[in-house]
Amino acid sequence: MIGRLNHIAIAVPDLEAATKTYASTLGAKVNPPQDEPDHGVTVVFVELPNTKVELLYPLGENSPIAGFLEKNPAGGIHHICYEVDDIIEARDKLKAEGARVLGNGEPKIGAHGNPVLFLHPKDFNGALVELEQA
Amino acid sequence: MIGRLNHIAIAVPDLEAATKTYASTLGAKVNPPQDEPDHGVTVVFVELPNTKVELLYPLGENSPIAGFLEKNPAGGIHHICYEVDDIIEARDKLKAEGARVLGNGEPKIGAHGNPVLFLHPKDFNGALVELEQA
Repeated sequence: MIGRLNHIAIAVPDLEAATKTYASTLGAKVNPPQDEPDHGVTVVFVELPNTKVELLYPLGENSPIAGFLEKNPAGGIHHICYEVDDIIEARDKLKAEGARVLGNGEPKIGAHGNPVLFLHPKDFNGALVELEQA
Repeated sequence: MIGRLNHIAIAVPDLEAATKTYASTLGAKVNPPQDEPDHGVTVVFVELPNTKVELLYPLGENSPIAGFLEKNPAGGIHHICYEVDDIIEARDKLKAEGARVLGNGEPKIGAHGNPVLFLHPKDFNGALVELEQA
């Protein structure tokens, strides 16, 4: 069912410093920051030849990553995103197998303009998993 | 400098259950478990079209992931691995920029038979980063 790894997301406490680490220290191609008010984050996309790293920084109040950064002040790997062909079909299969879908279970439009869903980390080895229809 | 994302590693408390989650629930291609006594882990490779997920389970005493699983009993994303062309050149550049290389600073032979190094999470937004010459 799952296809490509779409991205890995890393929550960072200092977006400018993190951008510099990836652009200069690690020498990767880094894009300008992009505000995603619907998701409560500012995102910097790091382009690797086969996938992306997303550096996430809180935007506005009630950012979904604020709590994560409180618990992990230095930052940390926040989630991994796998692509699926049909997000509704994927969701229904996962629910039938007992996996928990976060939120109200309806896909939202993600940072790339595609429908996304998040799955409960407890059902996936402690890793927060995002599914993106792509 | 960094190239492809070689893999994401997820430490898991129950390798059989985690394998089933990836093979059956997520429908990915999963390989048989592989003991890596030099690294203190048993690894299951999950093949995605563009990269790999490695499920890590402790092997023997003093496994480097035992402490992680104590702190994260449900498991969790343990590290990310980026490919580099020349690991010694990469190491020297990173050290010159102030990044800390773990262990004695000399590459070890990793699970894929290539030289690898680990970088200090504090210097990379809380994410443990492995570099693999590939």
